[in-house]
Amino acid sequence: MINSNNQKPVVLVIAGHDPSGGAGIQADIETIASAGCHATSVITSLTAQNTKQVVDILPQKPAAFRKQIGLILEDMQIASCKIGMIGDVQLVDIIQNELSNIIFPVVLDPVMGSTSGQSFADDNICKKILSSLLPITTVLTPNTKEARILSQSTNINEAADKFLKLGASSVLITGADEETDVVTNTFFTETESPVEYHWERLTGSFHGSGCTLSSRIAALLALDNDIKTSVEIAQAYTWNTLKHGIKIGQGQVQPDRFYEE
Amino acid sequence: MINSNNQKPVVLVIAGHDPSGGAGIQADIETIASAGCHATSVITSLTAQNTKQVVDILPQKPAAFRKQIGLILEDMQIASCKIGMIGDVQLVDIIQNELSNIIFPVVLDPVMGSTSGQSFADDNICKKILSSLLPITTVLTPNTKEARILSQSTNINEAADKFLKLGASSVLITGADEETDVVTNTFFTETESPVEYHWERLTGSFHGSGCTLSSRIAALLALDNDIKTSVEIAQAYTWNTLKHGIKIGQGQVQPDRFYEE
Repeated sequence: MINSNNQKPVVLVIAGHDPSGGAGIQADIETIASAGCHATSVITSLTAQNTKQVVDILPQKPAAFRKQIGLILEDMQIASCKIGMIGDVQLVDIIQNELSNIIFPVVLDPVMGSTSGQSFADDNICKKILSSLLPITTVLTPNTKEARILSQSTNINEAADKFLKLGASSVLITGADEETDVVTNTFFTETESPVEYHWERLTGSFHGSGCTLSSRIAALLALDNDIKTSVEIAQAYTWNTLKHGIKIGQGQVQPDRFYEE
Repeated sequence: MINSNNQKPVVLVIAGHDPSGGAGIQADIETIASAGCHATSVITSLTAQNTKQVVDILPQKPAAFRKQIGLILEDMQIASCKIGMIGDVQLVDIIQNELSNIIFPVVLDPVMGSTSGQSFADDNICKKILSSLLPITTVLTPNTKEARILSQSTNINEAADKFLKLGASSVLITGADEETDVVTNTFFTETESPVEYHWERLTGSFHGSGCTLSSRIAALLALDNDIKTSVEIAQAYTWNTLKHGIKIGQGQVQPDRFYEE
């Protein structure tokens, strides 16, 4: 007999695939599994890349993508959702339609490009994310560069304010992409003053830190933590995975999502 | 400073993607991660499926698939490889070409269909697997049904003999798909008599047991275990993941690849 009472909260991941395993759904699957949840993953775009460069982005055809999400939603009870790189404006519409009646929290990591420089999102995708996805977003997790591109505002506080007005329940803007001695992440909500978190800056270039952070927040929400607690614990987890990062190829270091003290 | 000495053996996975997370690259990624290795994954085919049914198989275009494998091989030192569902005969040729000069062991799980009944491989794929992939295969892991289809022989011993003659270094034929009280898996090599392993039959229908077994063997080989030890430890691991399987959706139970006693 199997133990049929064995259950895990299911986190729906909607994101790209990175063959190197540093970022994309593999980052999400590992992060969610190490939190004790089960990931179910629908791929927006395949990519050709390694730890040195992103060469191609290959979005799925809309009809195939829609069918894949539909089959998951009709079969499983979803506890939370993480949305990452999308890669095609038509897929944004499908995500909005499929998730229009959801009751679970959504973490949206608005991936605009790789740290190695490749762009994943044009103006159309940015506009559509703002109008279609922010209203269903529980936590938005841009870095400062993504926040500026998405908001069309150079000021981070103004950007966060815009995201909240458009319907996001909260915004965590991360600062690892700034050239500061200490990394400052700032958490914004409608009701409280912004909260700053400071992290020791790690040397080196990392692949998949944003995916790791956002999917950890989604897993913590699936485990019934409140939003602020999830945002705080996920930052500490992510910093630790980077501190103990692994050198898989010749390029960027990857987070060790299973590192244990 | 990050600890740049943190390394893990890299296992190259070449397989399909199952959005439910029961089988395919997610099964492999989880299994390889829980063994302390790092997976790098190139997707042969996307699928539309859930825990109840497989609806569509969508193979990648050959040129895109080739580019993705090439970028990984030029960047990383691979310790072992696991090949799963392929889905298109042209992709078999590319795998053969890309892996023609390898020095790492290859575990080939010749997935012919889902336990829910959908076929993943036609006659052309079977013939091409026999001629192109068996010569580079260290461990072949068909179940009895797959062994019969692939060998065109109803006798399991004859099937194994054919696979060895065509170049596979060893063959583990699993018996969970037979209607026996006890599950018998049989391990064949050129040099030793066949070895039988007996496992308590678990009730229920499972999604991803073959992927879990084959990727665990690949991970154990990457960790420098010998072939027979890898085959033995991987069976025990897989049985345990099934014994503690999780009910994610309305259909088949999925292995818990992170179960710990």
